[in-house]
Amino acid sequence: MIVRGAPLIGVTAAYGLAIALDMNASDAALEAAVADLAATRPTAVNLRWALDRVARVVRPLGRSARADAAFQEADAIADEDVAASRAIGRHGAALLRELASARPAGEPLRVMTHCNAGWLATVDWGTALAPIYTLQAEGAAVHVWASETRPRNQGLLTEWELRQQGIPVTLVADNACGLLIARSEVDVVLVGSDRTVANGDVCNKIGTYLKALAAREHGVPFVVALPSSTLDLSIASGDAIPIEERAATELTSVPDIRVHNPAFDVTPARFVTKLVTERGVHDAEQGALARAFPELVR
Amino acid sequence: MIVRGAPLIGVTAAYGLAIALDMNASDAALEAAVADLAATRPTAVNLRWALDRVARVVRPLGRSARADAAFQEADAIADEDVAASRAIGRHGAALLRELASARPAGEPLRVMTHCNAGWLATVDWGTALAPIYTLQAEGAAVHVWASETRPRNQGLLTEWELRQQGIPVTLVADNACGLLIARSEVDVVLVGSDRTVANGDVCNKIGTYLKALAAREHGVPFVVALPSSTLDLSIASGDAIPIEERAATELTSVPDIRVHNPAFDVTPARFVTKLVTERGVHDAEQGALARAFPELVR
Repeated sequence: MIVRGAPLIGVTAAYGLAIALDMNASDAALEAAVADLAATRPTAVNLRWALDRVARVVRPLGRSARADAAFQEADAIADEDVAASRAIGRHGAALLRELASARPAGEPLRVMTHCNAGWLATVDWGTALAPIYTLQAEGAAVHVWASETRPRNQGLLTEWELRQQGIPVTLVADNACGLLIARSEVDVVLVGSDRTVANGDVCNKIGTYLKALAAREHGVPFVVALPSSTLDLSIASGDAIPIEERAATELTSVPDIRVHNPAFDVTPARFVTKLVTERGVHDAEQGALARAFPELVR
Repeated sequence: MIVRGAPLIGVTAAYGLAIALDMNASDAALEAAVADLAATRPTAVNLRWALDRVARVVRPLGRSARADAAFQEADAIADEDVAASRAIGRHGAALLRELASARPAGEPLRVMTHCNAGWLATVDWGTALAPIYTLQAEGAAVHVWASETRPRNQGLLTEWELRQQGIPVTLVADNACGLLIARSEVDVVLVGSDRTVANGDVCNKIGTYLKALAAREHGVPFVVALPSSTLDLSIASGDAIPIEERAATELTSVPDIRVHNPAFDVTPARFVTKLVTERGVHDAEQGALARAFPELVR
C-alpha cells in the first residue's frame, strides 16, 4: 500500500520488473519476478497488464538487452498513463460541463468521489479527478465531496490533493453519502476503477456500490473514469472478479475481534451512467468497450 | 456522547431532571433544566419525550415534592424501557424465526446491524439486538455483521456487546455492506431508530439509508426495532426531522480540513419491511403507528 491506485500499481510493477531484470535477467529470474509482482495484489488488473506487456517485450531478447528494454517499456507505459489521464480529463470535462450548465449561475458543480483517483493514484492528473482539473483550468467552479473511504481513509488523500490544487473540497464519512445524495447536494458521482469488464460492470474501492445505489435512486449520474489499462475484456461480468481480502488490522488493532475486510466491490453496469476512457465517453453496456478497444479483445 | 442510544438518552435525561430538581426545585430552575437538557441533542426524540413526561408530573407539585416525584417518574421510564425492550425482543424474534426457518439446516441466521442498539444503548436488552438475544435464548444460531459506524465507531460497541453475550459477530467497514448484501451473505438488516414519524419514515444513525438501499435492491428484509418512546407522530414525514451536525474532529484532527458531519439520516418508509415496537410488528405505512399507539396522537 506504499504504492496504490490501479494505474500507478501498473506503472510501478513495470519498473519493478525492469529493476529485477537489471539484477538478474535469466529466464527463470524473469518469470519469478513476474509471478512475485503479480501476486502482490489480486484485483486491479493494471498490475497483470503491465507485467505481461513488459514480459512480452523482453522474453524474445537476449539477457544483456532485457533490462534496458524493460525500462524503455516501463517509460512508455508511464508516458501513456499520463496521456490517458489527460484524455480522460478532456472527455470527462465535456460531461461535467453539461451538468454544470444546469446549475444556478454562480453555483459550483458538486461532484462526489470515493477513494483517491487523482495524481496520487496515477503518474499524473488522475482518472476520476482529471476531468475536475480540466474543468478548473477552464475557470469553472467545482466543489468536491470526498468520502473518507474506510478502512484506509484514502479520502484524506483526495482531500489533500484537491486542496493543493485549490479546489474546494469537503470531507465526509462514507455513511453520509446517502443523505447528501438524497438531499440533492450532489450533481454527479465520479469515481475511478480497478477493473472494468466486458459487460461494463465496474470493480472499484469498497463502498463504491453503495454510492451507485443512492445515485440511481435519486437520478444522479454515476460516472466511472478509467484508462484502458484497467479494462479486462476477458471477463464477461463483474461476478468473476477476484476481490482482495485485506488485514483485520485495517479496522481494529484488538486481536480477538473477527473481521471481514474486502477491499473492493462491484457496481453492475446498469448503475453506471457513463464510462470515460482515453478514447471518449461510452455507455456501460455489453460490447461498448470492446468496440472502443478492439485490440484488447482476445 | 458519554450517554448514547436514543432510549438511554431519554432515561438519562429523566434522571438528570430529577437531580436538577433535587438541587433547585423552583419553577425557573425546572424550566431551565428542561431547556438545558433538551438542547443537548436534537435528533433522538426520546430526550424531549422523557423531559416532557417528568415535567408534566412535577409542574403541578409544590417545590418540596418535585425531586422525589421526578425520581419516581424516571424510575418508571427506566422500568418501561426494559419492558419495551423485552417485548421488542419477543415480537422481533418471531420475525427472525421465520427468516431462520428458510436457512439451510445448521446454518445461522445472518443479521446485519448498524451502530449499537443493544443493552449499551438502552436500560437493558436493547432494541435491534433484543430479538437476537431472544432468539439466542431459544437456542437458535445467529451470526451478526456489525458495521463499523463511522465516524464514531459504535459498531465496536456492538461487536463487544455481542461477544460478551457469546453471539458470533464479525466487524466490517460500513463500505463493505453493499458487497455483503449483493453476495447474499445477509438474511435481514435489523437496526434501531432515533426518531420514527407518522408515515413510517425512520431516522437513524448516519449510513442506515445506504444499507436500506442495498437491502431493497437485493430483496433482503429491512427491519427497524424501536420503543414507542422513539415515536414522533407530530411529524408527518422524515424530511422535517432535524439532523444533528457534529464536530469535524470526529473525522479528522487536521484543523484546515473542511468537514460535513451529519450524525443521522432518514430511511423513507417504502424501504422499511417491518417496524417492531413493544406492541408488535407493524407495516411502515401512513397511519399504522397511530393505530398502534393512539394515545401518542395529539
